[in-house]
Amino acid sequence: MNAKPQSLIEAIRPTTFIESVPLSNLLGAKVTVATETFQHTGSFKFRAAYNVALNTPNDIYIAASSGNFGQALARACQILGKRCIVVMPDNSAGVKIEAVRSFGATADLINTKEIGRWERVQQLAQQYPDAYLASAYDDPLVIEGNSTLGLEIADYKEKFDAVIVPIGGGGLISGVIKGLCDKGDTAQVYGAEPLMGNDAARSMREGKIIINELEPQTIADGARTVSVGEHNWQIIQNGVRGIFEVSEEKIKEGVRTLFAYANLKVEPTGALTIGAVLENQEFFAGKSVCIVVSGGNVDTEVYQQILSI
Amino acid sequence: MNAKPQSLIEAIRPTTFIESVPLSNLLGAKVTVATETFQHTGSFKFRAAYNVALNTPNDIYIAASSGNFGQALARACQILGKRCIVVMPDNSAGVKIEAVRSFGATADLINTKEIGRWERVQQLAQQYPDAYLASAYDDPLVIEGNSTLGLEIADYKEKFDAVIVPIGGGGLISGVIKGLCDKGDTAQVYGAEPLMGNDAARSMREGKIIINELEPQTIADGARTVSVGEHNWQIIQNGVRGIFEVSEEKIKEGVRTLFAYANLKVEPTGALTIGAVLENQEFFAGKSVCIVVSGGNVDTEVYQQILSI
Repeated sequence: MNAKPQSLIEAIRPTTFIESVPLSNLLGAKVTVATETFQHTGSFKFRAAYNVALNTPNDIYIAASSGNFGQALARACQILGKRCIVVMPDNSAGVKIEAVRSFGATADLINTKEIGRWERVQQLAQQYPDAYLASAYDDPLVIEGNSTLGLEIADYKEKFDAVIVPIGGGGLISGVIKGLCDKGDTAQVYGAEPLMGNDAARSMREGKIIINELEPQTIADGARTVSVGEHNWQIIQNGVRGIFEVSEEKIKEGVRTLFAYANLKVEPTGALTIGAVLENQEFFAGKSVCIVVSGGNVDTEVYQQILSI
Repeated sequence: MNAKPQSLIEAIRPTTFIESVPLSNLLGAKVTVATETFQHTGSFKFRAAYNVALNTPNDIYIAASSGNFGQALARACQILGKRCIVVMPDNSAGVKIEAVRSFGATADLINTKEIGRWERVQQLAQQYPDAYLASAYDDPLVIEGNSTLGLEIADYKEKFDAVIVPIGGGGLISGVIKGLCDKGDTAQVYGAEPLMGNDAARSMREGKIIINELEPQTIADGARTVSVGEHNWQIIQNGVRGIFEVSEEKIKEGVRTLFAYANLKVEPTGALTIGAVLENQEFFAGKSVCIVVSGGNVDTEVYQQILSI
């Protein structure tokens, strides 16, 4: 894409819906996958990043991300002719650093033993006072960007009983809820969160945002957040019907299941939703379920380890 | 799908087009993938199989296939309420036998040391004189079914300089040529064939069908055919601009490249076309190229071996 799309809808790729008969037979439910693995930069994050960069007047954007949001923001800024700095730990996977650079952004590498990521972002903010400090989830523009996925799910030829969405910071699920609501779609929305980092599920139980003491070291690295964001919580607390806390084992089984039954390469975070179905088959039996796969960017070594188990 | 679609277009899933900026940057060409990995039964073969079963009056269908055509014909017959027998070597992968059975067909297992596949098909034909003996490629109905992919490529928003299609028996490439011609699309069509089983390339050079003495033991198991079919040859000999003979190494590199740069799980046969581009980068430099990925059904162990190299 060389032109600059002036609307988000023009810029994003529609999600890819996959219906697999063998997968549905295996799970005893009518399962439709909505996969963002073929979105620009390989995850849903591009929807949010492009919406942020398109609708703010700044010339420079700063984010802390060693994962999908950094790549997405870098690419969005590249398309829109803006500058982007991504703060990343200096021990991030080489391919991730390269990906950010390949989209024309600066990878600002830090030693996390010497300086925290947010501390470094604050330093850069002082250096570039006109920069936009981009959050991967806690921003109305992020939620609005991600809501386009909800619109697409609402417009799909099939009406779903349930839609399951991964939860990390809550940017995607709050967007999907907003998109479904905007279309008057009454599908029940469920979250899928790693059991190891179940702050969102605990937040729902306690009626307020609960914060993990540390970043949970789940294999679902897109969900290694300490809590959902404030803007996200406003939507999640009423819009989510329930949150499934998925074991590490079922996340990995989910990766293998989508490989074998749907020809789909997904990253562990993207397998949270199939993991939730695998772990709760009685609950979903006979229902028409849309499972959102958030992205496909996974290191080859990690993927191989998961396949070999 | 429980209803019986009465037209092929209604029955098939549209192909999935994927444009990956990192992939295009890597290859120095504007590459668009048209992938059939999410087609019913995971390969393009369903297009052909459904068209055959839909447009013939028989109640029973017999095919020899240990691979994608067997599964596709089984599923097509299941949808149309017809009976299907698939002759398979008794040492076929268990998952392939299970897949055929899961679609309601009979897996007729033979010891290939005692009886040849076609010999067994002839035995069954005598037993079921009203059966349709289905060829995976050498049948006008197969070509017509596969031509739907050519129609979709012609209708894509981008006009391609070149379209590259895997060649085994020639069923897919002859169909794609027909579909493009039916739409007046003048993209140049190239074949991609394993160097180890280069009968089609040799046929083009000699102007007549050349037959391999043995089934070539290429990793691209969908192209282990001894020659292209007669009906296919009629179209291929004038419609194909050239055939790339792809080394085993580049087929495997193609699988890894699509995994890493396009989040795509493909079977080795499906990677013939990216292999052709990897091996001929100068030829394709700066062109707009559509590479057809024929399917995604690969054993986990084989896939892991390819990833580990």
